[in-house]
Amino acid sequence: MTGLKSREIHLKEYPKGAPTADLYEIKEVDVREPGEGEVLIRIVWMTVDPYMRGRMRPDVKSYIPPFQLGEPLDGGAVGQVVKSNAEGFAEGDYVVGFNGGWREYYTGPAEAYTKVDPNLAPLSAYLGVLGMPGMTAWAGVTQIMEPKEGETMMVTGAAGAVGSIVCQIGKLKGCKVIGSAGSQEKCDWITSELGVDVAYNYKDFDGSSAKLSKFLAEQAPKGIDTYFENVGGFQLEALLNNIGFGGRIALCGMISVYNNTDPEPGPANLTNLIGRGVLVRGFIVSNYMNLMTQFFGEMGPWVASGKVKFRETVYEGLDSAPEAFAGLFTGDNTGKVVIRVGPDSM
Amino acid sequence: MTGLKSREIHLKEYPKGAPTADLYEIKEVDVREPGEGEVLIRIVWMTVDPYMRGRMRPDVKSYIPPFQLGEPLDGGAVGQVVKSNAEGFAEGDYVVGFNGGWREYYTGPAEAYTKVDPNLAPLSAYLGVLGMPGMTAWAGVTQIMEPKEGETMMVTGAAGAVGSIVCQIGKLKGCKVIGSAGSQEKCDWITSELGVDVAYNYKDFDGSSAKLSKFLAEQAPKGIDTYFENVGGFQLEALLNNIGFGGRIALCGMISVYNNTDPEPGPANLTNLIGRGVLVRGFIVSNYMNLMTQFFGEMGPWVASGKVKFRETVYEGLDSAPEAFAGLFTGDNTGKVVIRVGPDSM
Repeated sequence: MTGLKSREIHLKEYPKGAPTADLYEIKEVDVREPGEGEVLIRIVWMTVDPYMRGRMRPDVKSYIPPFQLGEPLDGGAVGQVVKSNAEGFAEGDYVVGFNGGWREYYTGPAEAYTKVDPNLAPLSAYLGVLGMPGMTAWAGVTQIMEPKEGETMMVTGAAGAVGSIVCQIGKLKGCKVIGSAGSQEKCDWITSELGVDVAYNYKDFDGSSAKLSKFLAEQAPKGIDTYFENVGGFQLEALLNNIGFGGRIALCGMISVYNNTDPEPGPANLTNLIGRGVLVRGFIVSNYMNLMTQFFGEMGPWVASGKVKFRETVYEGLDSAPEAFAGLFTGDNTGKVVIRVGPDSM
Repeated sequence: MTGLKSREIHLKEYPKGAPTADLYEIKEVDVREPGEGEVLIRIVWMTVDPYMRGRMRPDVKSYIPPFQLGEPLDGGAVGQVVKSNAEGFAEGDYVVGFNGGWREYYTGPAEAYTKVDPNLAPLSAYLGVLGMPGMTAWAGVTQIMEPKEGETMMVTGAAGAVGSIVCQIGKLKGCKVIGSAGSQEKCDWITSELGVDVAYNYKDFDGSSAKLSKFLAEQAPKGIDTYFENVGGFQLEALLNNIGFGGRIALCGMISVYNNTDPEPGPANLTNLIGRGVLVRGFIVSNYMNLMTQFFGEMGPWVASGKVKFRETVYEGLDSAPEAFAGLFTGDNTGKVVIRVGPDSM
């Protein structure tokens, strides 16, 4: 035993709709010694992401197993190595990996971690623009949408952790970018700071795909060439009325339906995909892990030079994680949501 | 003037739902002389295809303009050259092309026609297995689904002109093939004659995607790798519950919704596309016209050697075209529907 205690967050029961705060409990456990090839990490930052809601559905077959009741939740985290029993990792190293979130200390296989440089970017950026959200945005744009200069790109959830990066890559590729968000403040941010050409507050359209279709037709009279889908629902239906011939759609998320207790029917105009010869690809970032080096090679310089900007919504302390997670579905956040679990250094 | 008279079928009004016989009228017109680069053709066979229903919606933007009221309908046909004013075409030649259907004689640009050999295959085959339906099937399978040996393929409309070819290519590629059709007789045909492994009558499932999902899960416990979509509706929803990780879907048609007067919502489980990393591509055969030579190179020998079989539902006489067309939407036909407009030779 290490003598260290770690508080960790467990799920007491699976959510029916929105993931409310009463579904969780905090337990304190002893932190175990790292075995052969393992490291013991003190968590500095943890992330909450919409895909975690999918892991709270025990009955749905997915790419990742559901969270178990009575065990700690898990997710991506940036931490500092406290004790290493693995080659290449030393005490004091900063690392990022897929495990260790939702708790203060984590002992596990070192192979799930990558060392990061705390001087290149703030540590939390490795959970955002230089982490999975950034790579998700980059992979969707470069591997599926393949935008060409002069084309029109549309992005839902455009002020979010992923969408805000998609918009900026779209501009770097020479596209006219149309982005949607859920408040005037977010729309202002993506136009003034990120260079988005047209921003709209989807709440202004009262869930009417017909109204939104008309608006999009005015903004993109020749059709929308590429689409990055984060939201689903009536915006997808409106997009399908305006998708151009040979359009490409990256399906990354459909956050509008994740909390539905009853299934919501899909768009009534899927047949448009046929006549217009449209490509749709659903994807998760792990499909493209082999391109990690290429991602860092492109995104690193963009971030360092300020060509790609990022914004964070910071929650303080492990206990705020349930609230931060719930906020993903209410639109309370802008940019990447990160939770500070401990200080950068002790 | 040629002195020839041609009867041709016009659309009097656009259909609201199913395309009933009272929407048409037959007019007799004078046949004009071919101008420079044109041919005058006597139509031997004409085709009716589901896409023509799409051309009967004057308000929908599509890849091909809508039919005009008061003008003849048009579509693919095989005919014999009566008079040629174009290089490479002589009187007596047999040709296939996209124009000339729905009438007895047609004068138009020779460039829309390809000469065919009446001794290689029956003339009507150039509207089916060696024509657009065959090429549609071949392109969907080889360019989008890319089936691998040992995988499971599913096909709706599996006894139809396109689906029956898809099934057979699936077997030639070493797949387990699941096909759906609308009668026991059709199911028997695709299993006994085409080698389909599992055939089901979709009417047995009462439009319940849950019931069909369960059946498909039993037939393909590891998931369905590739899907050729001809039909849409509840079968698509059931398929999306059973699509495998990395699945590929060719969207060719959604015949179940073409006659709907009210839009029918799409499947409620589109999010499955995301987690399972599924590719969906809508397509029309003209996207792949540059592969015509490759198509003939593969399909020609398959047909000649009997590896790919085909079946036709033959209607006699131009006047039967409206009935033949309506039959596409009621499931009254098996294989390719062709209409004999005139004798092979005069």
